[in-house]
Amino acid sequence: LSKSQEAYFAVIFSSQRTPHEESQYEETASRMAELAKEQTGFLGMDSARDSEGFGITISYWKDEEIIKNWKSNGEHIFAQKRSRSEWYSSFKIRICKVEREYGSEASK
Amino acid sequence: LSKSQEAYFAVIFSSQRTPHEESQYEETASRMAELAKEQTGFLGMDSARDSEGFGITISYWKDEEIIKNWKSNGEHIFAQKRSRSEWYSSFKIRICKVEREYGSEASK
Repeated sequence: LSKSQEAYFAVIFSSQRTPHEESQYEETASRMAELAKEQTGFLGMDSARDSEGFGITISYWKDEEIIKNWKSNGEHIFAQKRSRSEWYSSFKIRICKVEREYGSEASK
Repeated sequence: LSKSQEAYFAVIFSSQRTPHEESQYEETASRMAELAKEQTGFLGMDSARDSEGFGITISYWKDEEIIKNWKSNGEHIFAQKRSRSEWYSSFKIRICKVEREYGSEASK
């Protein structure tokens, strides 16, 4: 980060999708991305999932308080429950502080 | 992180591949993953690239010094140069401190 830039946070969500199709997965994932974007302090999101169903989604946030608020959002909690029981066979979440960065923005 | 666990670092590498096939890209990417694993203080790696060529690779490291050493590794520098000129149309690297984590390990 340049000196003029404030530190920010990244939430790394790594997940393995279950092999079966789940009708509401795509809709819910899109809705959660949309809802995240509406949160104050949301800075951006990158996502990639490979052909074997392994995916990484990283969302960027202004501070940790906002990340906690987002985790406890009612609609998001409902999605988290279905994530655990239906959509992912395993997942891990890491909350990180971005210390420095370089390169141009890589986005689709 | 649990209290017994030491903090560690994540290097988030987001990239957009160029559309054309590059014969040595896959070999070099595999070789770099192999070489990273040989570095003292390397903790793990997750990677996903979607069908549009957008990918995220995250490597985990014990401390920032080790990340700097890896960046200046001779063979890695050679790969970095080709990355910039041939393999990626854009990329961004973020060096992060992992503050906390939960969930089971999601890996292929």
